[in-house]
Amino acid sequence: MCAFLVVAEKLNGTLRDAAAAIANRDRGYVQDMALRQAGAGADFLDLNAGTAPANEPDDLAWLVETVQEVTDLPLCLDSANPKAIAAGLERAARPPLVNSVSGERSRLEGILSLLAGRAWGTIALLLDDSGIPSDVEGRLRVGRRLVEQTRAAGVSDEQLYVDPLAIAVSTRQDGALVAFETMRAFRREFPQVRFGIGLGNVSFGLPGRKVLNRVFLSQAMAAGLDLAIMDPLDPGVMSELLATEVILGRDRFCRRYTKAFKAGHIVG
Amino acid sequence: MCAFLVVAEKLNGTLRDAAAAIANRDRGYVQDMALRQAGAGADFLDLNAGTAPANEPDDLAWLVETVQEVTDLPLCLDSANPKAIAAGLERAARPPLVNSVSGERSRLEGILSLLAGRAWGTIALLLDDSGIPSDVEGRLRVGRRLVEQTRAAGVSDEQLYVDPLAIAVSTRQDGALVAFETMRAFRREFPQVRFGIGLGNVSFGLPGRKVLNRVFLSQAMAAGLDLAIMDPLDPGVMSELLATEVILGRDRFCRRYTKAFKAGHIVG
Repeated sequence: MCAFLVVAEKLNGTLRDAAAAIANRDRGYVQDMALRQAGAGADFLDLNAGTAPANEPDDLAWLVETVQEVTDLPLCLDSANPKAIAAGLERAARPPLVNSVSGERSRLEGILSLLAGRAWGTIALLLDDSGIPSDVEGRLRVGRRLVEQTRAAGVSDEQLYVDPLAIAVSTRQDGALVAFETMRAFRREFPQVRFGIGLGNVSFGLPGRKVLNRVFLSQAMAAGLDLAIMDPLDPGVMSELLATEVILGRDRFCRRYTKAFKAGHIVG
Repeated sequence: MCAFLVVAEKLNGTLRDAAAAIANRDRGYVQDMALRQAGAGADFLDLNAGTAPANEPDDLAWLVETVQEVTDLPLCLDSANPKAIAAGLERAARPPLVNSVSGERSRLEGILSLLAGRAWGTIALLLDDSGIPSDVEGRLRVGRRLVEQTRAAGVSDEQLYVDPLAIAVSTRQDGALVAFETMRAFRREFPQVRFGIGLGNVSFGLPGRKVLNRVFLSQAMAAGLDLAIMDPLDPGVMSELLATEVILGRDRFCRRYTKAFKAGHIVG
């Protein structure tokens, strides 16, 4: 058991194979992918139907039920559509993580009110209807309003996983640094709030993305990251994660790393 | 050209193949290894004869002359033996880095006096005749005395690469963290001093050492590391280094990373 949480990203309808499986109600694909990700060390399974708004509630509900037939691992309901989140919450056997709310009015009004007493936690993006603030102070302003509203909606700070939003470094040289500094500043102000981020955006537009993503993960962990939405089937990023816990002094007696090595999970 | 300096470690008589090459005066091995490391992105070539004190001055002098026949890359003279350092300094075509002095009386008295006006810089280990201080404050105490003495010997703070000494994490869970905190604390007190470290110690006694070493490098760079003695022929660690520069916002337009990718040097 590791304090850092891995949310497995592969059951996502924006990925071609998963999209086909959802369209064809391919239980075998979905259940096999759920079990593979669970076996590779996932703490949560992200479920994103990625379909049109009219179908999304049914599709997400089907994903929840199909996955729960083969694993007890908690789920992460991934949608910007309140009806889909509601349908998923109704089927979930245990309180899931919700991905995500944000400072956008539509998400706040539609999704936040569903969560109290039903969600394990929620990811909250530091953006609002004006977009993503470019600097740390702007993100803190969005975050302060968000925390006010999540608290009012019965979501405790410990249940809140703020996504500091890393802009692609190909667009903005300090894209990762702003995310790291946002986490540090946010934690000083709200010590109980946690942080979660999806790997991938930071390397958009560049070659060699896997290496950039895993180094970003390692540096983000040092800056306070608690959770990542990532691919547990990529042994490179899982090795980096486990090694980072050793280097940051978080793996007692290096037991978890040594065990993963013996199981053949450390590569490179 | 990168601000971070790679000191290539493979011409070291404590490694079996290099030891044989030194013993047999195998110019082919030494010159080929020098050129391969230079081609892989080394900024300095570390030369360590690793032989008995009586032979070491001759052996190190031979290494210096042999390497200089094929490359103009600056050298790093690696020995605790003042006579070997003196012999190397005499042959070096351009001011080399010296590895290393420390707070130990024998190294301070024997090596430090050789450096003024002749060395490009020196690595200084934060230990003295009592050993390695276990905490940050103890290392700062050794460092303060060291800086006093290097300044008095004509070595400027900009020429000083302090090695904060990472204890193996298998021995001490916070072995890497103490090194990172030592760099941060030292820089607050001596903003011009630089930091250099050899990769490898931190992972001693553990399996999967390459992954631990490269994650340590990446985290140490974020804590202020300026130089590492490392293997430039390991594409995993070089990829990590280049990706870290991108993530930390130090690779303008990601040019260096993109160029390395095109050359096939980014792996994983």
